[in-house]
Amino acid sequence: MNRVIITIGRQFGSGGHEIGEKLSKVLEIPFYDKELIETAAKESGMHTEVVRNIDETASNSLLYSLSTGAFIMGGRYSPLSDAPINDKLFFAQSDMIRRFATEGSCIIVGRCADYVLRERKDVFHVFIHAPKEDRIKRIMKLHNLSESKAKDRIKSVDKKRAVYYNYYSDHKWGDLQCYDLSINSSYLGVDQTVDVLAAAAKVKMGK
Amino acid sequence: MNRVIITIGRQFGSGGHEIGEKLSKVLEIPFYDKELIETAAKESGMHTEVVRNIDETASNSLLYSLSTGAFIMGGRYSPLSDAPINDKLFFAQSDMIRRFATEGSCIIVGRCADYVLRERKDVFHVFIHAPKEDRIKRIMKLHNLSESKAKDRIKSVDKKRAVYYNYYSDHKWGDLQCYDLSINSSYLGVDQTVDVLAAAAKVKMGK
Repeated sequence: MNRVIITIGRQFGSGGHEIGEKLSKVLEIPFYDKELIETAAKESGMHTEVVRNIDETASNSLLYSLSTGAFIMGGRYSPLSDAPINDKLFFAQSDMIRRFATEGSCIIVGRCADYVLRERKDVFHVFIHAPKEDRIKRIMKLHNLSESKAKDRIKSVDKKRAVYYNYYSDHKWGDLQCYDLSINSSYLGVDQTVDVLAAAAKVKMGK
Repeated sequence: MNRVIITIGRQFGSGGHEIGEKLSKVLEIPFYDKELIETAAKESGMHTEVVRNIDETASNSLLYSLSTGAFIMGGRYSPLSDAPINDKLFFAQSDMIRRFATEGSCIIVGRCADYVLRERKDVFHVFIHAPKEDRIKRIMKLHNLSESKAKDRIKSVDKKRAVYYNYYSDHKWGDLQCYDLSINSSYLGVDQTVDVLAAAAKVKMGK
């Protein structure tokens, strides 16, 4: 069986995380998201809670740093006091992502994994999106939020994901040319989206 | 069996046309591209050859009109002498697309069909893309062109497609949020891309 590393980028509220988890069960391969952060934290010696506060979707400091122009592209120069932590975390995560990819087939959600693994030929790059109205409904239900709060949350999280991705890569978050398959999860629903992705992955795995 | 109208947008050289044709055979539903133009021409009383010269990918006059700012968004106002022909053709094509969609399941390549049918709930919007290097190779082989000529042709055709689409719709050509499924045809190859699309369409058709 051939190795396939599946990276999943996703709009907030599109069900990308759930789709990734279900896909990992169907394909019987590991799934990485928060664990990746935690493992990366251990590797780099940072306390897990600190890492959680500055992870991909919560990096207000990164957004602030970018808005003030304190960073330069590539994350090499960052005079703000918290910036080196973001960079250190990013590089630790990238090392972990590369290690996971070396170990065997797996699914990695977010964390610029598609960009980190861009040189590998055995990677299947996926992006999950959905119409905004469906994402609002999903977030309202999942997080017990009002429509207005859900809208704000979606706007904020997607903005942070885009900033993070565009900062650490030279690609553009949500540009279809960065992905092998982009799918509207509302079109078929979560379970049948998983089936379509599994079918594509199985072709490559020779299953 | 439920009706599914499949619209296919595609980068030049991505194999989108071939994928559409093969998909129509697998699903046993009609496939429309040039015929659509010809039928629209007959409907609007225009000579087929005239229409061919101003169709989607060859509309230099439209590009020129846009570059001079002679058009306004929506195609309602167009003082250049050839502009009304473009508009007339577009509206005639749109009528045909709507008629085909009413008649039953089918596949329509290009022609802003996704935008024309945006109000329908039974439409599956697909976009086919591929890395530029693969598209260059495909066009070199298909049209017996040098690498340099193939590159120029791709740039020119995709630019015209984008201008045409962006002019006649309020969407952006190649923006993944306009499509239910976008796929890199190089990832699985033409035949297996067809299989993935067929699997997704069959879910909706209840096949």
